Amino acid sequence: MKARIPEATVARLPGYLRCLTDMHLSQGPCSSEDLAQAAGVNAAQVRKDLSYLGAQGTRGVGYDHEMLGQKIREVLGLTTTHPVVVIGAGNMGSALTNYKGFDTWGFDIVAVLDVDEDRIGTRVDGLIVEPLQHLERIVTDKGVEIGILATPPSAAQSVADRLVAAGVKSILNLAPAIIQTADEVSVRRVDLSTELGILAFHLQS
Amino acid sequence: MKARIPEATVARLPGYLRCLTDMHLSQGPCSSEDLAQAAGVNAAQVRKDLSYLGAQGTRGVGYDHEMLGQKIREVLGLTTTHPVVVIGAGNMGSALTNYKGFDTWGFDIVAVLDVDEDRIGTRVDGLIVEPLQHLERIVTDKGVEIGILATPPSAAQSVADRLVAAGVKSILNLAPAIIQTADEVSVRRVDLSTELGILAFHLQS
Repeated sequence: MKARIPEATVARLPGYLRCLTDMHLSQGPCSSEDLAQAAGVNAAQVRKDLSYLGAQGTRGVGYDHEMLGQKIREVLGLTTTHPVVVIGAGNMGSALTNYKGFDTWGFDIVAVLDVDEDRIGTRVDGLIVEPLQHLERIVTDKGVEIGILATPPSAAQSVADRLVAAGVKSILNLAPAIIQTADEVSVRRVDLSTELGILAFHLQS
Repeated sequence: MKARIPEATVARLPGYLRCLTDMHLSQGPCSSEDLAQAAGVNAAQVRKDLSYLGAQGTRGVGYDHEMLGQKIREVLGLTTTHPVVVIGAGNMGSALTNYKGFDTWGFDIVAVLDVDEDRIGTRVDGLIVEPLQHLERIVTDKGVEIGILATPPSAAQSVADRLVAAGVKSILNLAPAIIQTADEVSVRRVDLSTELGILAFHLQS
């Protein structure tokens, strides 16, 4: 079934899940209008997205929070823990490692690595920063599935290559650089300074 | 001139600037191939992008780092300081406030606000977390230009409305929620958990 879920729907599922988790506190059932507002689409699109999951709401009432949340977690593969390694213990890498938002979705940061002698051995959120040479061993020993790149741009490609060679199939790239990988590797990119640069440009207009 | 720069070019300028800043250490001139690799486009696209800025490289040598960097900073409006307010002192808001990457581009976080009594009065990277009621006064007093939303999704829209009413024209939305604003307001969105959710989905395939 999963293969048939359109990419655009997949991209909206985390938003629905966050909305459901947030609304969960208020206990009541969750209408497709609530979800639509949270995801910035219309209610018809929500119903269509959720139909791919085999989830059906009750007319005039809505969707059962807990059931729908569980369904989305299953489809996204968030019911198991995903070991994550962070490469780069600079400001961005440290900030991310400290960010507790990952835990709640089952992303478990198992190691933080760096090449900088001044950073290796220091502590980031309970983890000791390890030398980059340990990368391959850590990936194997801890079954790392996701690599988060928080390196300088010049190091991003070579670290990505090492992650992929070690068997990591998913990369979240926070380095301000485009990386090239084989087609079977999933790469997502988040670039805060680009977003702020674009905002700064528009400030002038 | 700025009005004629295509949006796609604007979106690549921060990447070029980061590349230039990074390569600056190596001192040599910077070819359009270097920039192309960093931005994930071809060299012809780089030359076209930079021609909008009136920047011309020397054939066979490349672009002068410092001059090109300065030119991009001018066009993006990064030559002046932009006061920024962060709303939400949770994990994401704190991580961002601690992220030093903003400083180097002239983004100055002048205040961190929250509604949570347990957070108000605590210190985040040298700033005392202030109550959200202070928002309008801070925007006026400090000339805040950019608001960073790091609130729970349910609060994102109302805080965005208050920012806009107070005169803020640029919003970086890190809350997992879509916000609606008037056309003249620039909104950029970064959603880490969505990116990770998408990666988790692809892990299963």
